[in-house]
Amino acid sequence: MATLCRPSVSVPEHVITMEETLELARERHADHPQLPLALRLIENTGVRTRHIVQPIEETLKHPGFEDRNRLYEREAKARVPAVVERALDDAELLVTDIDVIIYVSCTGFMMPSLTAWLINEMGFDSTTRQIPIAQLGCAAGGAGINRAHDFCSAYPEANALIVACEFCSLCYQPTDISVGSLLSNGLFGDGVAAAVVRGRGGTGVRLERNGSYLIPKTEEWIMYDVKATGFHFLLDKRVPATMEPLAPALQELARTHGWDASDLDFYIIHAGGPRILDDLSTFLQVDPHAFRFSRATLTEYGNIASAVVLDALRRLFDEGGVSDRSRGLLAGFGPGITAEMSLGRWQTADDVQGVRQP
Amino acid sequence: MATLCRPSVSVPEHVITMEETLELARERHADHPQLPLALRLIENTGVRTRHIVQPIEETLKHPGFEDRNRLYEREAKARVPAVVERALDDAELLVTDIDVIIYVSCTGFMMPSLTAWLINEMGFDSTTRQIPIAQLGCAAGGAGINRAHDFCSAYPEANALIVACEFCSLCYQPTDISVGSLLSNGLFGDGVAAAVVRGRGGTGVRLERNGSYLIPKTEEWIMYDVKATGFHFLLDKRVPATMEPLAPALQELARTHGWDASDLDFYIIHAGGPRILDDLSTFLQVDPHAFRFSRATLTEYGNIASAVVLDALRRLFDEGGVSDRSRGLLAGFGPGITAEMSLGRWQTADDVQGVRQP
Repeated sequence: MATLCRPSVSVPEHVITMEETLELARERHADHPQLPLALRLIENTGVRTRHIVQPIEETLKHPGFEDRNRLYEREAKARVPAVVERALDDAELLVTDIDVIIYVSCTGFMMPSLTAWLINEMGFDSTTRQIPIAQLGCAAGGAGINRAHDFCSAYPEANALIVACEFCSLCYQPTDISVGSLLSNGLFGDGVAAAVVRGRGGTGVRLERNGSYLIPKTEEWIMYDVKATGFHFLLDKRVPATMEPLAPALQELARTHGWDASDLDFYIIHAGGPRILDDLSTFLQVDPHAFRFSRATLTEYGNIASAVVLDALRRLFDEGGVSDRSRGLLAGFGPGITAEMSLGRWQTADDVQGVRQP
Repeated sequence: MATLCRPSVSVPEHVITMEETLELARERHADHPQLPLALRLIENTGVRTRHIVQPIEETLKHPGFEDRNRLYEREAKARVPAVVERALDDAELLVTDIDVIIYVSCTGFMMPSLTAWLINEMGFDSTTRQIPIAQLGCAAGGAGINRAHDFCSAYPEANALIVACEFCSLCYQPTDISVGSLLSNGLFGDGVAAAVVRGRGGTGVRLERNGSYLIPKTEEWIMYDVKATGFHFLLDKRVPATMEPLAPALQELARTHGWDASDLDFYIIHAGGPRILDDLSTFLQVDPHAFRFSRATLTEYGNIASAVVLDALRRLFDEGGVSDRSRGLLAGFGPGITAEMSLGRWQTADDVQGVRQP
């Protein structure tokens, strides 16, 4: 009876608006033959503001992979603990109640993962399991939820902490000037999110089933080119159209659970871009309003990679949640192309008794 | 009743002997003030041969992080599928029987992880879960086993595939000349291993309990410095002495299970270096002969990182296994400093019925 509790989210203090993004693109790529297309694509994202860990002037510099990665580490250490504390508080748990930390992040690379530092710094038990995942990109938010669910299925008394730490601005590559890169430069933002999955009790989404789906032969559509200058994000232009093959996977998972993916009470979807949300709404035949949480994340923060699903879920909590036993779908999408999907029902802690005795 | 089946292991065709390693160290570091110490440490490893993906002349060159990482990808794609096929054959399963692939590797970085390519290339089901872990280093062999165990506890009918792909020679950094680096240059080798954990049936180690332990405040003792030239392995000189704090963690896990870690029937231990095995034998009061599988891996292949535990276990199978219900301990050690430990009993497939009716 794993319950995904209220996520805690923090975005950095430096803000860049869409107007500033467009202006920068015009300035820096004045001679780019496809500048008009790039500007149109950026405008279409609907991303009004993004929050980044450094002022934009610093962000646009590339001090080298080593300094970038050091900055990632410094910012992660400065920003993650407070978010984790709030997630624990919201789940009414202590650090010592946590059995596993699932840390997902694709925008910096540390070995050991930040998990080791977190355990030492925040006083988690030395026996806390560490599951660091760096290679599932934006899908890792969903993967974190699903692996936490699995862990609590294996150990019903256990509690899992999910941390998604993404500083996409630290992967900005000034020399990458394909249209896909220019679009990405206007789409991705920074954010840190954390959430607890409680094995027993808790208010939030009681996770009932999860699944993964890889669209065949698309492993090069979203990928990192790993270079001396760091991770170079490659985005194939076919990616926005991937909801057509993914919608049936979501439908299939729901069907297996006796549910209809077109007729659920809430949807927490990775906001990879505007077309992802539009298309999914079309292919699932779901009112676009159902995706308002994801849309708000995209508009206010941009695509904050693996942190999107946790931020969208946080917005559902902020709206007051839904009525008990309401059925919902959560899904992260990312490289592979992989979908990490889960189904659950809303549950308030006090209702546990009622749920068990329908 | 998850059972860890016979691992399949492959090491590359290029061999370097200890004599060649020592000779190279003498040639390349003739003026190094601590050369005698480095040579002595290398000799003490007892590593007689290592297998590497390129001839040694190529290995000693550094073509840049980008080329290195491309080489990692090429070699992984060339070498992993055959090892996976053999592991599946040994477990008497088909690709379509696998529910999750846990891919552990710290010596190259790809996003998406090789899991996506493997699913496409080898015909795994599109719904196969992917758990890529890059940041647990040598401990990831143990972590892979433990996460597979957890997955099969959550889904008792499921089967997990563990793949450990480590090309340590591709992390050779010619400019790193600390004694720790010179020692590492003589210690690490390349290898690919795979094993299936079957939820039902199978011959091998029936996994009963697992646990993790982080030695407090040691997160900087084994780490990567991430630079434009790639991953730079840093090894603190205090690492070889870590069995003193880790032995009690192994004892504690065994005690919780009603077992005595000093009195088990088999031991599959990460062969990080000779002192790890010597000290653990002392602190656990276990006959050094019990660590012969790990010792053989170290001697013949060097420290092949996360693949060590799978190779050591393969040697136990090659020896004919042990009698049914024999109790054993498996442990991987790596950055954090983290121990990933598990306890299990030997089981032959035909005996399942008997085991259930003691």
